[in-house]
Amino acid sequence: MKEAALNAGPHSEYSAVMKLRAVLFDAYGTLFDVHSVALLAEQLFPGYGERLSLLWRDKQIEYTRLVSMSGLGGEHYRPFWELTRAGLRFAAARLGLTLEAPAEDRLMNQYRHLSAFPENRDVLAELQRRGVPAGILSNGDPEMLAVAVKSAGFGELLQHVISVHPVRRYKTDPAVYALGTAAFALPAREILFVSSNCWDAIGATWFGYTTLWVNRTGAPLDPLGIEPSHSGRSLRDVLAHFPA
Amino acid sequence: MKEAALNAGPHSEYSAVMKLRAVLFDAYGTLFDVHSVALLAEQLFPGYGERLSLLWRDKQIEYTRLVSMSGLGGEHYRPFWELTRAGLRFAAARLGLTLEAPAEDRLMNQYRHLSAFPENRDVLAELQRRGVPAGILSNGDPEMLAVAVKSAGFGELLQHVISVHPVRRYKTDPAVYALGTAAFALPAREILFVSSNCWDAIGATWFGYTTLWVNRTGAPLDPLGIEPSHSGRSLRDVLAHFPA
Repeated sequence: MKEAALNAGPHSEYSAVMKLRAVLFDAYGTLFDVHSVALLAEQLFPGYGERLSLLWRDKQIEYTRLVSMSGLGGEHYRPFWELTRAGLRFAAARLGLTLEAPAEDRLMNQYRHLSAFPENRDVLAELQRRGVPAGILSNGDPEMLAVAVKSAGFGELLQHVISVHPVRRYKTDPAVYALGTAAFALPAREILFVSSNCWDAIGATWFGYTTLWVNRTGAPLDPLGIEPSHSGRSLRDVLAHFPA
Repeated sequence: MKEAALNAGPHSEYSAVMKLRAVLFDAYGTLFDVHSVALLAEQLFPGYGERLSLLWRDKQIEYTRLVSMSGLGGEHYRPFWELTRAGLRFAAARLGLTLEAPAEDRLMNQYRHLSAFPENRDVLAELQRRGVPAGILSNGDPEMLAVAVKSAGFGELLQHVISVHPVRRYKTDPAVYALGTAAFALPAREILFVSSNCWDAIGATWFGYTTLWVNRTGAPLDPLGIEPSHSGRSLRDVLAHFPA
């Protein structure tokens, strides 16, 4: 049985089914809808909600990369919650919006309680039913993740909720992806890493995970000479990789 | 004399003048106007020039960070020219534009021959007259930089044209900033590092350079808990830091 799986070609469905033993999800953008804050942003700043939300997210991610790249020993690391606030402040300033403390607090609080995408709970419950261990590997700091997981009612469905916080680096640093293989005690290729962020799926692919890019918006692939192992349009596409 | 300079406060003009011995410029966005490609982009894709140009630049920079962060040993490094092309292809696809090979080649060729900002030649010539050695430290690969420097007629005015290429990492990795101190054989704080990109000025400040952020567009500061040593609005602001 084992030998048959090893001999199956790399694109064989049989081989793919046999070797995947766990699922690791990105959180923000994948399980939790980061753009759900756009609704509140639009209430607070009519006509700017979408732009504020998008720029906020872009700057937040940019800042994670800058603090990681500039301080290889983690000396410039600041928790995701602080970088999220920094991104919001920059985005508001860039758009010429005056962000008073109450509005900032409301937006940050909204970010803490992001909506989950509607199909996600069913997918996690079905994975559990099929005996597939699942976890989160996220840039979020432990407190943010704890609140988000609890709000969405995912607590019982996840075996590991892993934050980058202990390594003081952000995705796509290999030290971050190594937290996932350590938690599951599995080789990266035996774990399906699932992200809606193309750059995260690519970083995880480089690291060695089997990857699924959940491309909800039909975005183009970042043409960096590598592709995620699989792509799909909703979290339901995870289930095709595990026997019912 | 030396003791007086050492005893002067950190914000003393005297101290600042005494300790700066060289200038290191970022290239793209600082000496060369990356958005000059927007004009050609607008001709090729009417109504999309500005958006294509901005998204192209954003993705180009994003890709430099991803390949640096994901491969700490430089294993995912690809030269800036290739990442520039990848950024253009993504940007066109994202905006739903069909980018045929001739249009792609014209835009890439335009990027190779970017305009210099109008004041730059005078500033470089004046630094030379004042006996201040000047150089470039850029994400660009050596060929791109050679063409850009030659096109702008800066060749005689620069002592060092330094590409990140040998270290196979991009800004803001400390290995990149270390190329500048090595070339001038000076401590970082004695070199004025000049960039129009706030993130680059911040990265260089973290590394230890005395920095000048040439904030041409009046952008907000990225609120990352650190500020460039100085800021200004044009390259002419460099001259205030060196005696005439």
